[in-house]
Formats: sequence, C-alpha cells, structure tokens
Amino acid sequence: MDGAARGLADIGLTNFAPYLMNRIMGRYNAGFREELAGLGLTTPKARALAVLSVVDAPLIGELAVYTVTEQSTLSRALVQLQTDGLIRRQTDPDDSRATRVTITETGREVFQTLWPHMASAEDRMFKGIPEDERQAFVATLQKMLVNIRKHEI
Amino acid sequence: MDGAARGLADIGLTNFAPYLMNRIMGRYNAGFREELAGLGLTTPKARALAVLSVVDAPLIGELAVYTVTEQSTLSRALVQLQTDGLIRRQTDPDDSRATRVTITETGREVFQTLWPHMASAEDRMFKGIPEDERQAFVATLQKMLVNIRKHEI
Repeated sequence: MDGAARGLADIGLTNFAPYLMNRIMGRYNAGFREELAGLGLTTPKARALAVLSVVDAPLIGELAVYTVTEQSTLSRALVQLQTDGLIRRQTDPDDSRATRVTITETGREVFQTLWPHMASAEDRMFKGIPEDERQAFVATLQKMLVNIRKHEI
Repeated sequence: MDGAARGLADIGLTNFAPYLMNRIMGRYNAGFREELAGLGLTTPKARALAVLSVVDAPLIGELAVYTVTEQSTLSRALVQLQTDGLIRRQTDPDDSRATRVTITETGREVFQTLWPHMASAEDRMFKGIPEDERQAFVATLQKMLVNIRKHEI
C-alpha cells in the first residue's frame, strides 16, 4: 500500500521520513549556526568554504546547489569571503560571462578550524549507531539525493 | 577513526550525512512549497495542519518544535488559520497563561487535500528503495532524532 492510500495517522508522524529529517536538520543547523557565530562565520560562508575545500573551482550556480543556498545570499557571502581573502572569484576561461570560485590558502586554514565542529556534530548525530548501520544509512541518502535532485551534481 | 581525525576530503562530500540531508531536504521543501502555493497554503500552515491532524491539542511551544518553525512565524500562521476556521486556540484549563491549539473539521478537510501531496513526495524520495531498506532508514532517523533533539517530543 503506498503512502497516499494510508493516512498520516496510520503511518504516524515519527515514521514519516520527511518529518524526521526536517526535525533532525532543523536542530543540527541551529546548533551549527551557534557554533559558527563563535567562529565569526555564517552558515552560507561556512558551507561555501567546506564545499570549496573539496570541489575544484565550481561555477557560482554549482556552488549554490552544493551549499543549498539561494544564489543572491551566496553571492553576498562570497563578496565578504573575498574581502577577507578566503576565496577568489575568476572569470571562466571558456565563458567570459561565467564566474568560478576557488578557495585560498587562508580559506583552507579557516576551514581547518571549522571542520572539527562539523565532524563532531556529525558524530553526535550518529551516537550509539553502529558503523554498518551508519554506512547503510548514508547509502540510502545517496539514492534519495539522486531521486530528488534537479541538477547532475 | 572518528570524523575529526579524518578530513572532509577523506570522507568525501557525498559520504557526509549532514550534507546529503541538507541537499535532500532543501529540494524536498522547495518542491513542497511550490505545491502548497497551488493549494493556497504556506509551509508553516501546512506543517501545523499536518501535526494537528495527529497530535491532540499541543501547546504552541510544542507545536513550534513539531513543525520546526520559529514561534513568531508559527503564531502568525495560526492567526491566519484561525481566521480561516481551520484551527482553534484555547486557553489551557490548567494554566491560564498557556494556549493549546486544535484542528477543526474544516481544518481536517483541508489537510485531506494536502496529504496526498505529502505522501507522494515521500514516495518519490524513496523511489526504487526496497521496503526493508526504507524501514531501516526510518529506524536510524528515529535514533538520530533522540540523539539531537533538545525537547522530549
């Protein structure tokens, strides 16, 4: 029986995956925002640094997808990150209208102070959950992202 | 080896659960918001109706936790839902300073038009994912919510 044939009362709020995921990420992101404030960063800035530490020179539109941030919000964050010397924006050599973003060495250093907070927040999420269950969970998330995403990244 | 000892480059962005969950819920919530606009609803209103259809007479603060909505935003949504006759706000019989919220019959009818959209969005998320994997995934989410939540609900 699919979801539409059963009601929410039959399924139960705490068995409805989007409810659980919104609850978990709402709390995770609020806690992360508080920790970031102590480091002088905002969520869009921190996400941009994290993505740029592992993705080489994305277009601004790609970075908006990776960071789940509105492009206008991201652009403001990038202006500030560039002023602080943490990223560079460069015209795409193959398309003069497109801008690519790269992280600087200083940006990598700031990300290194940020990463332990991200890693320990993830560890708290998975507290008491065995490694094989954790891996199965991430594998399901990867399938869900392919199901739901609109972009090829 | 725990997360802090490994770097994000070692783990990989697409193995980092909070990244995947933010990507998935960002897309899910954006799609849901578009569907709701067609029904004349906003996300806080829709979440409030969904929770009230299965949770009996929560306090406003409890409803804010369930709906992952700032209390000020939720309060505005509740004023509008009450004006439209979809919910009632009543003083708690045991605490004259506290307000409890209940759904009306009209509210339940509106939720019935909303629910198929929620159910099919969840089904799209789990497309191609076997039922046992889906159940294991939800069980892990339930453990994560207990790990991360600040409230007993």
